[in-house]
Amino acid sequence: MPPRKKTAQTPQSAQKGISYADAGVDIDAGDLAVQRILGHLKRTHTQRVLENEGGFAGLFRLDFNERLFKRNYRDPVLVAATDGVGTKVLLAIQMDKHDTIGQDLVAMSVNDMAVQGAEPLFFLDYMALNKVEPALIERVVSGVAEACRVCGAALLGGETAEMPDLYEPGHYDLAGFAVGVVELKRAVDPVRVNQGDVVLGLGSSGVHSNGYSLVRAILKRKRLKLDRPNHELRDLGVDDLLGHVLLEPTRLYAAPITRLLRGYKVKRPISAMAHITGGGLPGNLNRSLPKNLDAVLDRSCWDVPPVFTALKRWGGVDDEEMLRVFNMGIGYCLVVRPHFADAVAERLRKLGERVYRIGRITRGTGRVRIK
Amino acid sequence: MPPRKKTAQTPQSAQKGISYADAGVDIDAGDLAVQRILGHLKRTHTQRVLENEGGFAGLFRLDFNERLFKRNYRDPVLVAATDGVGTKVLLAIQMDKHDTIGQDLVAMSVNDMAVQGAEPLFFLDYMALNKVEPALIERVVSGVAEACRVCGAALLGGETAEMPDLYEPGHYDLAGFAVGVVELKRAVDPVRVNQGDVVLGLGSSGVHSNGYSLVRAILKRKRLKLDRPNHELRDLGVDDLLGHVLLEPTRLYAAPITRLLRGYKVKRPISAMAHITGGGLPGNLNRSLPKNLDAVLDRSCWDVPPVFTALKRWGGVDDEEMLRVFNMGIGYCLVVRPHFADAVAERLRKLGERVYRIGRITRGTGRVRIK
Repeated sequence: MPPRKKTAQTPQSAQKGISYADAGVDIDAGDLAVQRILGHLKRTHTQRVLENEGGFAGLFRLDFNERLFKRNYRDPVLVAATDGVGTKVLLAIQMDKHDTIGQDLVAMSVNDMAVQGAEPLFFLDYMALNKVEPALIERVVSGVAEACRVCGAALLGGETAEMPDLYEPGHYDLAGFAVGVVELKRAVDPVRVNQGDVVLGLGSSGVHSNGYSLVRAILKRKRLKLDRPNHELRDLGVDDLLGHVLLEPTRLYAAPITRLLRGYKVKRPISAMAHITGGGLPGNLNRSLPKNLDAVLDRSCWDVPPVFTALKRWGGVDDEEMLRVFNMGIGYCLVVRPHFADAVAERLRKLGERVYRIGRITRGTGRVRIK
Repeated sequence: MPPRKKTAQTPQSAQKGISYADAGVDIDAGDLAVQRILGHLKRTHTQRVLENEGGFAGLFRLDFNERLFKRNYRDPVLVAATDGVGTKVLLAIQMDKHDTIGQDLVAMSVNDMAVQGAEPLFFLDYMALNKVEPALIERVVSGVAEACRVCGAALLGGETAEMPDLYEPGHYDLAGFAVGVVELKRAVDPVRVNQGDVVLGLGSSGVHSNGYSLVRAILKRKRLKLDRPNHELRDLGVDDLLGHVLLEPTRLYAAPITRLLRGYKVKRPISAMAHITGGGLPGNLNRSLPKNLDAVLDRSCWDVPPVFTALKRWGGVDDEEMLRVFNMGIGYCLVVRPHFADAVAERLRKLGERVYRIGRITRGTGRVRIK
């Protein structure tokens, strides 16, 4: 078991001059927070995690002489990603709802990793705040741990940094770091996108973790209340508190994508994938397009969740802007060889995804065109 | 080449309603920042890093069928650590000196990793700030890259998050993530600390990255000026600006420790190690002590750097508190079998370290006693 560390430490000794406690750092709260979250970490640990009580870093066994790599990987490549949750964290703070922002944190990194075809191995988190509040930290980290468990990653360690002069009371920030593994051949010799390939889109759960600066600007301008249901959203069939609608956690695509890829050891039906984050469909799906092909998407092929319809209306945001800031209902894309499209879609549906056939690859100039 | 990402993105399209740019997010500055630091990242890349232009995550080849692991590792264990630099970042901001805080960030994680006997493989950073300033980001990341290069780690990726409502103008925070590798046998079957073992201490470069809440409380109470040399420090032989003395970057022990360990493939002269961070010598060296042994250190055996003498005087901090908050001149400890102590010390000196024989392991109760 690796330690959950904390930046701030204070001594037990009696003080004459200034002490660390005088400087605003509370070790007991820090230790309590560490105790509280150990159980959450342990829930995510498999045999591959080595116990390391009191150690300085987390240990994860590659185990390639035995089960893991002997069976699955000839030439493993480590895949690493880091991300935060942006200003979504400020909505969590405003709503005092901290149990799902951890899923956002994990999803942002492991979904990026899934695009490389990688299976998540482990995750670490960094949480910086004004003052260590054990209950708050536990709520956030329990969400991180649960999301790790869902996508098969071990929560290998973390850092809690108490920095009263950098963060306002009640504020905190989160950063996440994920490491996964992919077979070398898949990493360096990916299938290329071809003319005629089909673009499958996986439904998003809502705004995910991008565009919150715009969301918050709209909330402010329209003076919308987070702590009650919104009548326009209600007309669109959404009865939740507005704050909860906006805090709906980012969908974890890593688990179904990993399982899908395991089913295709020989055949290579998937030409490319994209995690739809900042930049939207046009700014992410384009990253896998060669210079002579376009992805042509048909906007009528998928359901735009009500939250986007409402945000557009409130902010008077134009269509193109909406598509470049938000996922608009598609959180993840797969570009698939045409004769495999139905089979891939069906497998993903069985794994619990909403799958839309949203477009085609055509001759073009490396752009995403949305009609 | 993996991308340096950024949380904030804005579209190029003309706006009617609120746009992402109106919400305070500037994509051009973000792109410029990414461009500026690509060169710094590339400097740290070896053959083991796979090019991944436009990709969603960084790729690092384990390469175990060939050079790296075939020769060095039978059963590799991944070691992961995360840390920030605490409120030292606020001193960097106050002094507008950002070129060395990146070394602090890397050192905090890779030194922890060195304690597990691990060789650093790669590093990722997270930088969160009020507003993307390409020159600032480049200065910070170039420091990160240079430190990575020194300790043989690839800077595999990073995230820049612009969050104007979470960070004050000019403020930023940093988090670092490091992954390394160690042989399974060394990780799970360490040599144990024995009675009679010798404690070697490696000289620190100054305050390193712990205790800055206390440092800043002392600065405030005594109204000390950072932007000029301090007369008390000058009397102790230190002519630098006080701010520069306090920003002296954390020493990178990972490189010499890795090289030292490589020299002992069969013999096991080192019983334990410790990175002296928050908690000082008593709160870190104790982590490797069994319940029936103490580490007895002799304070007269090493030089306490002038900065600690001055901090103690200014703050009226008592001795025990100083030892529990600061490294007091010893940044890293090795507990060594007695007949190897001279040889290990000599090797470390040749690798550029100041080495002190600071104590012994005796019967006791698992504590660090400092006389």
